[in-house]
Amino acid sequence: MQVEPGKLLAGIDTPDDMKDLDAVQLVQLSSELRQYIIDTVSVYGGHFGASLGVVELTVALHHVFNTPVDQLIWDVGHQAYGHKILTGRKENFHTNRVYGGLSGFPKRKESEYDAFGVGHSSTSISAALGMAEASFYKNETDKHHIAVIGDGAMTGGMAFEAMNHAGVSNSNLLIILNDNCMSIDPNVGALRDYLTDITTSHTYNKLRDEAWKVLGKISKFGPNAREIAANFESSIKSFLLKQSNLFESLNLRYFGPVDGHDVNHMVSVLKDLKDIKGPKILHVLTKKGKGYSLAEKDQTKWHAPGTFDKLTGEIYKKVYETPQPPKYQEVFGHTLVELAETNDKIMGVTPAMPSGSSLNIMMKAMPERAFDVGIAEQHAVTFSAGLATQGLVPFCNIYSTFMQRAYDQVIHDVAIQNLHVVFCLDRAGFAGADGPTHHGCYDIAYFRCIPNMVICAPMNEKELRNMMYSSQLPENARPISIRYPRGNGVMPVWKSAFEKIEIGKGQKIKDGDELAYLTFGHVGNYAIEATQRLSQEDIAAAHYDMRFVKPLDEKLLHEIFQKHSHVITVEDGSLQGGFGSAILEFMVDHGYQSKVVRLGIPDEIIEHGTQLELQRDCGFDPEGLYLSAKKMLDTVPA
Amino acid sequence: MQVEPGKLLAGIDTPDDMKDLDAVQLVQLSSELRQYIIDTVSVYGGHFGASLGVVELTVALHHVFNTPVDQLIWDVGHQAYGHKILTGRKENFHTNRVYGGLSGFPKRKESEYDAFGVGHSSTSISAALGMAEASFYKNETDKHHIAVIGDGAMTGGMAFEAMNHAGVSNSNLLIILNDNCMSIDPNVGALRDYLTDITTSHTYNKLRDEAWKVLGKISKFGPNAREIAANFESSIKSFLLKQSNLFESLNLRYFGPVDGHDVNHMVSVLKDLKDIKGPKILHVLTKKGKGYSLAEKDQTKWHAPGTFDKLTGEIYKKVYETPQPPKYQEVFGHTLVELAETNDKIMGVTPAMPSGSSLNIMMKAMPERAFDVGIAEQHAVTFSAGLATQGLVPFCNIYSTFMQRAYDQVIHDVAIQNLHVVFCLDRAGFAGADGPTHHGCYDIAYFRCIPNMVICAPMNEKELRNMMYSSQLPENARPISIRYPRGNGVMPVWKSAFEKIEIGKGQKIKDGDELAYLTFGHVGNYAIEATQRLSQEDIAAAHYDMRFVKPLDEKLLHEIFQKHSHVITVEDGSLQGGFGSAILEFMVDHGYQSKVVRLGIPDEIIEHGTQLELQRDCGFDPEGLYLSAKKMLDTVPA
Repeated sequence: MQVEPGKLLAGIDTPDDMKDLDAVQLVQLSSELRQYIIDTVSVYGGHFGASLGVVELTVALHHVFNTPVDQLIWDVGHQAYGHKILTGRKENFHTNRVYGGLSGFPKRKESEYDAFGVGHSSTSISAALGMAEASFYKNETDKHHIAVIGDGAMTGGMAFEAMNHAGVSNSNLLIILNDNCMSIDPNVGALRDYLTDITTSHTYNKLRDEAWKVLGKISKFGPNAREIAANFESSIKSFLLKQSNLFESLNLRYFGPVDGHDVNHMVSVLKDLKDIKGPKILHVLTKKGKGYSLAEKDQTKWHAPGTFDKLTGEIYKKVYETPQPPKYQEVFGHTLVELAETNDKIMGVTPAMPSGSSLNIMMKAMPERAFDVGIAEQHAVTFSAGLATQGLVPFCNIYSTFMQRAYDQVIHDVAIQNLHVVFCLDRAGFAGADGPTHHGCYDIAYFRCIPNMVICAPMNEKELRNMMYSSQLPENARPISIRYPRGNGVMPVWKSAFEKIEIGKGQKIKDGDELAYLTFGHVGNYAIEATQRLSQEDIAAAHYDMRFVKPLDEKLLHEIFQKHSHVITVEDGSLQGGFGSAILEFMVDHGYQSKVVRLGIPDEIIEHGTQLELQRDCGFDPEGLYLSAKKMLDTVPA
Repeated sequence: MQVEPGKLLAGIDTPDDMKDLDAVQLVQLSSELRQYIIDTVSVYGGHFGASLGVVELTVALHHVFNTPVDQLIWDVGHQAYGHKILTGRKENFHTNRVYGGLSGFPKRKESEYDAFGVGHSSTSISAALGMAEASFYKNETDKHHIAVIGDGAMTGGMAFEAMNHAGVSNSNLLIILNDNCMSIDPNVGALRDYLTDITTSHTYNKLRDEAWKVLGKISKFGPNAREIAANFESSIKSFLLKQSNLFESLNLRYFGPVDGHDVNHMVSVLKDLKDIKGPKILHVLTKKGKGYSLAEKDQTKWHAPGTFDKLTGEIYKKVYETPQPPKYQEVFGHTLVELAETNDKIMGVTPAMPSGSSLNIMMKAMPERAFDVGIAEQHAVTFSAGLATQGLVPFCNIYSTFMQRAYDQVIHDVAIQNLHVVFCLDRAGFAGADGPTHHGCYDIAYFRCIPNMVICAPMNEKELRNMMYSSQLPENARPISIRYPRGNGVMPVWKSAFEKIEIGKGQKIKDGDELAYLTFGHVGNYAIEATQRLSQEDIAAAHYDMRFVKPLDEKLLHEIFQKHSHVITVEDGSLQGGFGSAILEFMVDHGYQSKVVRLGIPDEIIEHGTQLELQRDCGFDPEGLYLSAKKMLDTVPA
């Protein structure tokens, strides 16, 4: 089923078709575009609120600017659905985020209109500035470079780094601050407060009050004092708004704020800005979820609601007859509160992912002990290190893919000082529909080279709980990382009593003579399936849930290599330097010469799809494990 | 030889001994402390200008605050020599940066006065805020948490992330902005301009002018208008300085600027600030190199001058009778200009390391094509990605250790999009005297898992030149990293003609039957030494300079493993997941069963020392390579 676009939208194949639209038509196109997004997302799922919020901005930008010659970069990019629909991808838009279909984010190889691939936050200004400097160098003076960045993404440090550079550049850069007070969750921090200040002319009002106060007092100087004050007020206003402005401090000319839902006003402002050279920022006020009232009211819930009935707003949930296993995220969230109730040293830290990580459970239960620090992974880690120096035990929850943003801080501020910070790496392995920018492929490899670091991964809910429990014990006061995937575990009844797991201790799940699966994390469940299937063919495969890739369970590994000449390692991480590689290092260092097949994520960019689709492609779904064993034992042709 | 402290300084064992000093004595102590730093560094070497600049600040802080209960964090930390001398390390200070001696940076395990280990820039506010929040939670309300951060470090994004969080915190945090307009090189960017603005009261002056203009014009309103204006001026001044302030925008109470060389004024200000709760910032103006006129005049040269004659200012240079090989850094700097002269697509990018990397050669020769973007590694990488999207070929030079700061940008913005950015990883391997925070141990492992990335390392100057040449060729338009160590190469005559190296092509240096060294990078020269020594004992060891760890030269490796049952891999990088590990992956994946010994940096934090001292400790100096071969061949007892 494909969604029908409105009449005007139906005729828009590329932005060229939008150039001649008049004011009334631009309003209508905006309305049709919004409806098309609602119609499509309600049926096919995807990000929702963010794109609704920038419908008018998207229309205005493509109407005014000469894309794709002018370079338009959407920070993060989940607000770019309208952009995709207007730039030749309307017909395929229903394949958004589906295996083999359109990416949920702008992507260079998908369209020439996608000037820069995005997914992670706060990259757009740097990228746009690079493009702008390139144009400056090439003397392409009438080319425009536009970064559209949310107020949440503005808190990411690299946005500030880029503005510091942009402020001394002569290049043709337009930053559009899409101010909606939201990331996925509400934004936090001083910047948000500041933007609210500007928006409500708070600063200006304060100054005006001050002027009135001073000038009012001195009415003794003459009957005209009040008049002087009034005169002064209007004259000083524009100056002040400029001088008291954070962005002007960084030498970016500031314009706005303007109403981001008045498409024609924005068209007029953007046209004016085209003539102003140099770096500048336009502050646009939008509402996330605009035009779909439920989404306006509960913006976190409607960030990416899945499919829903667009008329009633009922979000469809699959109904199961039997109890289902919980998400690892939920287990994390509840378990952390449970542990914190008995250990008053435990604190929680998240960089802007309270609902995604489920840290919001702790934020609600014990708000003084759980911190959302904004989109600021670097700060989140070093802030956690600071907490740890004072004897506290922070659980710092960062998605595997976003931990890349804080890699130096993990090494420099936590590991070198051997501080007791527990990193919970959510979304490890494939992210699924979010695709390559969000897959958590690399963390095993990039953490494994860090001294002092413990790296473990639970095979199920119980192990996650026990790893969390063990991590906070005083005897394990060192950097510890626990990685687990997005989505459901395997234990409908998961709230087990805590048991201590010794650091570096794996476990044998099943005996067997012919080969051994060595697994790390949730993929251990696939080995259970594979060994059962092999059993039915009278192939006795052993299975070891190694639990730790660092330190390795050397005792267990000696046992394994003394017994097994055929070993299959399984991980949902990069094969270069990952878990399997650690096993090889052990094996060769100790002079063993078994045959080892390593299953995991190969050395290529893996596109989007469901986790199982991608694992199947990479050969480490349950079937892949089974087939690898058969092949290794030569019971099928190689 | 130990340096004699002045009389007052001689009596200071800990900051407790400074509490009762009077104003005159504080000035004298500052003077003696400065002299002690000059006396020591001139003889023993080390960082110089930064510590001279904060002498008075250091004395004032330890006089006013109750360290180590109050937490004092020095950002970067090479300005902390005075701090070390005043906190019980005077007697050992001459061991600074020497193998087994004091660290050149604050370090938690060295002293309880070192509240947080530092080395990389921009971490102090995050760490101090973590400590402050911990104290807030523990209700330690009279404890102070002080981050001393330079204006250069302020441009690092994580400082901004931390301020964004601090601005909404109630905790007791004092940020001291040590404003000297310098990092190692002069600071760049809009922030520097802004701080100059504040410092010269530019903003205030502009407003005053505006007020005069407006109020002056309206003198028709009465004879008192000018008086009104004057009155207005003084009243509005403090308000304005506050409102128009970048830091106040982020809800940090701003104080200053104050003269950072007036110790008693600072004592008085700091005492006042102790009583002001909540997050606040004190802007202190200092001069890098203060009190040593040559260092004041050429601050980059005197950042870390080595040893020198303190009276004449002559910096001692070792004199050689024969031509010496150049530094890899110099080869990089000159070669880049040479290449850029014939390829107009080449651009240069450095995050605040123009002199350290030698990009300053290009900045001087072709200023429009070389960018110093400030202490901003993340931005440097994504900015380079932006340049690359426009068909340019940026050479982005970042030290291996600082590349950790831009890891996500390399993956997300360059590798996933397969953009043609050439990363030059300077200071790969051991940094030497700078120690663990600066060692470049991890880059092979953390880059190796990134798809599309090429990773190579030159064995000498010629290979560096040829790798740079090959990297910029259009047929190699993909992410490429070239890692090379700090310091000298091996070729006094180095300016060879360019030859193309095929991506992923290693070379055989020497034939031999009994074992094979596989080396990666400069350590290949150690294998030359080792094979020669073995030859003298009639042990025929082969040597392969693999040049690429990604992609591997599979053809050559098949040859090697078909021939050699004994292999030694050598790298100046982490053994977990590094070069040796890549070789194991190849070997096992292809069913070879040679014995392999991997030499490199073991899984522990390696302290400071000379590069050769540290390599010796890790067993991969030339002697280590020789002994490993002997041991492997059983010609010495194991």
